[in-house]
Amino acid sequence: MDLITIAGLVLAWAALVGSVVIEAIEGGGSVNAAMFMKLGPLVLVFGGTFGAAMVGLTKEELIALPKVIMKAFFNKKPDYPETIRTLVNYSRQVRRDGLLVLEKQTKNITNDFMKKGVQLLVDGVDMNHIRLIMETDIALLKQRHTEAGEFFMKLGGFAPTLGIIGTVIGLVNMLSNLSDPSTMGPAIASAFIATLYGISSANLLYMPIGNKLKKINTMEINERKIMLEGLLSIQAGDNPRIIEERLLSFISPKEREEGRSKKGASGKETK
Amino acid sequence: MDLITIAGLVLAWAALVGSVVIEAIEGGGSVNAAMFMKLGPLVLVFGGTFGAAMVGLTKEELIALPKVIMKAFFNKKPDYPETIRTLVNYSRQVRRDGLLVLEKQTKNITNDFMKKGVQLLVDGVDMNHIRLIMETDIALLKQRHTEAGEFFMKLGGFAPTLGIIGTVIGLVNMLSNLSDPSTMGPAIASAFIATLYGISSANLLYMPIGNKLKKINTMEINERKIMLEGLLSIQAGDNPRIIEERLLSFISPKEREEGRSKKGASGKETK
Amino acid sequence: MDLITIAGLVLAWAALVGSVVIEAIEGGGSVNAAMFMKLGPLVLVFGGTFGAAMVGLTKEELIALPKVIMKAFFNKKPDYPETIRTLVNYSRQVRRDGLLVLEKQTKNITNDFMKKGVQLLVDGVDMNHIRLIMETDIALLKQRHTEAGEFFMKLGGFAPTLGIIGTVIGLVNMLSNLSDPSTMGPAIASAFIATLYGISSANLLYMPIGNKLKKINTMEINERKIMLEGLLSIQAGDNPRIIEERLLSFISPKEREEGRSKKGASGKETK
Amino acid sequence: MDLITIAGLVLAWAALVGSVVIEAIEGGGSVNAAMFMKLGPLVLVFGGTFGAAMVGLTKEELIALPKVIMKAFFNKKPDYPETIRTLVNYSRQVRRDGLLVLEKQTKNITNDFMKKGVQLLVDGVDMNHIRLIMETDIALLKQRHTEAGEFFMKLGGFAPTLGIIGTVIGLVNMLSNLSDPSTMGPAIASAFIATLYGISSANLLYMPIGNKLKKINTMEINERKIMLEGLLSIQAGDNPRIIEERLLSFISPKEREEGRSKKGASGKETK
Amino acid sequence: MDLITIAGLVLAWAALVGSVVIEAIEGGGSVNAAMFMKLGPLVLVFGGTFGAAMVGLTKEELIALPKVIMKAFFNKKPDYPETIRTLVNYSRQVRRDGLLVLEKQTKNITNDFMKKGVQLLVDGVDMNHIRLIMETDIALLKQRHTEAGEFFMKLGGFAPTLGIIGTVIGLVNMLSNLSDPSTMGPAIASAFIATLYGISSANLLYMPIGNKLKKINTMEINERKIMLEGLLSIQAGDNPRIIEERLLSFISPKEREEGRSKKGASGKETK
Repeated sequence: MDLITIAGLVLAWAALVGSVVIEAIEGGGSVNAAMFMKLGPLVLVFGGTFGAAMVGLTKEELIALPKVIMKAFFNKKPDYPETIRTLVNYSRQVRRDGLLVLEKQTKNITNDFMKKGVQLLVDGVDMNHIRLIMETDIALLKQRHTEAGEFFMKLGGFAPTLGIIGTVIGLVNMLSNLSDPSTMGPAIASAFIATLYGISSANLLYMPIGNKLKKINTMEINERKIMLEGLLSIQAGDNPRIIEERLLSFISPKEREEGRSKKGASGKETK
Repeated sequence: MDLITIAGLVLAWAALVGSVVIEAIEGGGSVNAAMFMKLGPLVLVFGGTFGAAMVGLTKEELIALPKVIMKAFFNKKPDYPETIRTLVNYSRQVRRDGLLVLEKQTKNITNDFMKKGVQLLVDGVDMNHIRLIMETDIALLKQRHTEAGEFFMKLGGFAPTLGIIGTVIGLVNMLSNLSDPSTMGPAIASAFIATLYGISSANLLYMPIGNKLKKINTMEINERKIMLEGLLSIQAGDNPRIIEERLLSFISPKEREEGRSKKGASGKETK
Repeated sequence: MDLITIAGLVLAWAALVGSVVIEAIEGGGSVNAAMFMKLGPLVLVFGGTFGAAMVGLTKEELIALPKVIMKAFFNKKPDYPETIRTLVNYSRQVRRDGLLVLEKQTKNITNDFMKKGVQLLVDGVDMNHIRLIMETDIALLKQRHTEAGEFFMKLGGFAPTLGIIGTVIGLVNMLSNLSDPSTMGPAIASAFIATLYGISSANLLYMPIGNKLKKINTMEINERKIMLEGLLSIQAGDNPRIIEERLLSFISPKEREEGRSKKGASGKETK
Repeated sequence: MDLITIAGLVLAWAALVGSVVIEAIEGGGSVNAAMFMKLGPLVLVFGGTFGAAMVGLTKEELIALPKVIMKAFFNKKPDYPETIRTLVNYSRQVRRDGLLVLEKQTKNITNDFMKKGVQLLVDGVDMNHIRLIMETDIALLKQRHTEAGEFFMKLGGFAPTLGIIGTVIGLVNMLSNLSDPSTMGPAIASAFIATLYGISSANLLYMPIGNKLKKINTMEINERKIMLEGLLSIQAGDNPRIIEERLLSFISPKEREEGRSKKGASGKETK
Repeated sequence: MDLITIAGLVLAWAALVGSVVIEAIEGGGSVNAAMFMKLGPLVLVFGGTFGAAMVGLTKEELIALPKVIMKAFFNKKPDYPETIRTLVNYSRQVRRDGLLVLEKQTKNITNDFMKKGVQLLVDGVDMNHIRLIMETDIALLKQRHTEAGEFFMKLGGFAPTLGIIGTVIGLVNMLSNLSDPSTMGPAIASAFIATLYGISSANLLYMPIGNKLKKINTMEINERKIMLEGLLSIQAGDNPRIIEERLLSFISPKEREEGRSKKGASGKETK
């Protein structure tokens, strides 16, 4: 559960609703909620925005969309320190007992990328091929995930213009039959609802989620880079302490303390 | 047939028309379709936008335009897994019978890029030259296709400003003869039609198609990269299993299952 | 003569004028051309835009400007296939008779870049130096030409804001003496003329020309890259057929047929 | 204390308040401060902006935010010349007494990055590993800090649109009950307050701070690059004079005078 | 004296003033200059813009600002041909008499970068170190100068929004006391003055100067690249004719004629 995503969206929408309520109270009246609920603009802004943005997708991406959205809400930050401790641990085992010692580890590994890497190591594939295979994998993951974030950015780009389309249609409607001037005010108000939907959905929904997806992407890529560097260093037979230092440089100084293997405390490593 | 392209555009335009109908019904009146059909803004927005954007093309690109547009609607997603299976299959054959075994395959290959690559392999051209020739081909394809996507992005950029030009002209016309105030409303409404055309065509037509063309481009480039890497690995005499692993890293985890050669199931490979 | 540039601009401006005429006819009146011709906005938008953009130029670039503009209208697309045929032809001659055979060709070469390259080859300058010299030349050409395209993009950026400045000035003028309300309409109309000039010149003149200049630049760079690769391959003594294949990968599949040397048809090559 | 940050913000807000006061005096009236203080827009613009932008953060980044803001106000410019003098000094000591002479320095070094680098040197880690470790560290620092600057840029991007949302809501409210035309003016005025809050906070608070954070980032990265290059040159046993020349090329000509080691004046170096 | 900078700014502002005068004459009235001079907007737009932009500077950059502005007006274009002739001349002398012959030249060199380079050559520093030192110097110069140009671009970005802030404040003031409708016109006019100041200063002052500073930067970087390549070629003992050809490829074909050393005409070279 990504509490930040939920807290941010709740705060943003609460601020929107709150400001409407405050102004209604200050104006001495009550909130006219019906005024802000219009079916026409709703259909135009949400239908039009989604239709325009989905053209750029493939069928597979469209099907994967609900899963992507879930990710923004239920993603778990990768545990970098744990990943590093695991890799340093592997390096110690390999130094002592050779690469094949990792074979029995493969079934315990839950991360697909790590599993594939360890498997390649155990199979004795040479360094250049492992780097090529795993870097291509990272590059393609980056491309796929960037597109997920970009899709929400596109929603955020189309929504305000769809809102303006709705407002222009509303104004055209209103202006072309001005028989009763007293309806003019409410008609303009109604026309602006589309703009309101467009800007609000873009700024308080699509773009924040797009930003979160990009951040998640960055973190996953970073985790895989740590895995790749760690595995290649293990294969090269580097000193575990150097490997640890190298991998710790991938994470923030704050997390480093946690990632540093506590000798003596961790039974697997010492002995 | 690219159903996503068609579904997206249909959804977007249906949302636009639907919202107009809904508002007309809510307003208790009927839809005044004539009001939204104006010849002047039509000529200005579509003619002006196309004229402004076509200046940046060469004659060849202009002629190729209808074909490019068709591509956004009738493109077939490259079958990555099939391509990979074919390449792994080639690699097995070459390992057993040498490079010349590919010669008889060339007439069955429908993809021009693959055909050219296999031909170069059979001709015994050295690795560096093959890489140079095929990478230049990919780079130029990318450039040509990017320009096709960019052309639609330019249409999407010019259209709203052409719409504003139309609206300003309409307002100037209206304001300079205010003899009859009762015509003012419809005149402003009429002026806004140009803006409506401009924003709608940009957001519900040009930009979605531009996005799709870019996506198609990315997929084609990716397919060619797989072919290039595969052919070079075959030439280098790499192990078919490593080649498979390397090529599978170019595609999404979902497609990998499908791309993995099923030994025993495929008669060509086993035996 | 670049017919596309001219056709595009004519189409765009015809659409603009056409829409004004259509609306006048529909409105039952005649076109009031004088209304769209104002000296003040003309001076402001065109003078101000050019002044603001020219600050970023050097004296040399300012003097070269008319020539650059001509280029957008009178540029001839490079004949890639012809260039490739010539280079492949050279490679055959050199293979047979040595590098010095090119010496007598130099006086027939009209393209400066090709001439310089052949001269360096004949002089026996080594490969690395030729590459350095010719790549620097290409890089600097790219920079110089990009700046020409950028200048028009800057004109296209300044023009709309200058138009807004004119409109704001007009509105300020109008609002500060509202003695006679009947003049208000025409005064606002007049103020909007500046905006009209600004957006129109940007979108129907400056930016299309800027786009064309960038396209021309891309094509010239591409031609020079073909020449550079061809000459270096000739120097390296590569097989003419490989050189041909390599150079053909720089051009579109459509042009390749034309660029492929027709043995037997071309007297120079066979014999 | 970063006086420039404070002076800039004070100047900007003083200009804002000053202009309001000047206009009130010129208008012969008094400043109606209450008019510019509205709770509704305040809640919407600041709450909504922060909520929308925070979605893109991780929990760790959110917690670190106050510290980041402090940085914009209390950051001290790195003392490049001092850093260079220290490194040149180290290089002289190492030339004379070997790498281990640095061991006793490590406890005096306050900068974590420098400390880590010297430690790696003393430990005899080889050049490539040191470069990898320290360059990864720099790259990640850059990424983390860029995100801090980007967060403020996002605040600066969301704030004006939140302001527009507030204004549209205000206008819709006003237009839908036009019973008393005399309240229309103040109601529109009130609606514009949200826009005012949005643009002002973006331009006079968020974006300036974002710019400052980016500048601080650039300076810290530059300092670390100097340290990295210096330490690697020391390890390579380069001539101290060359090291000095190399490191001085990282700083502005003005600072170079100061950074150049004054032989004779500095007791540590001579002798 | 950079006449282009001055001519461009004079032309732009003359167009602005000219259009106001033309419209006043056409309107049969006189120019009401006082209407365009308002202290409030002046303080807000110029004070606020400068305050917001200066936050991103360091103290050193703020102090250097007047010198940077002077540069846009008094900069002299680098004399590329002269630089090339000098370098080719050096290369001839070095070929004849060895590197030390340059020692006596160092005191005559006015350009700091050239002087430093020649000094490094004379000192016998090896090629890689010279390249590193001088390329870092170029990179840092680029960064420092880009920031100067960027500062003016930031001024150009803040100014229009500050103008809008001023206009919104003016409108809020006006709308909240509509007691006397007759003052409404002038009050709106007055509010728009801030927008006018903001857009005009951005487009006719800040951005043109920013563009010029970027152009100057590009030219200085290019000059230093010529010097670096020339000096390294001299050290490598390359043939003076090749050096000349290589350096000439850095400049435009027009300047090349001038840069080519005229043998016989130049006493230093022949003999």
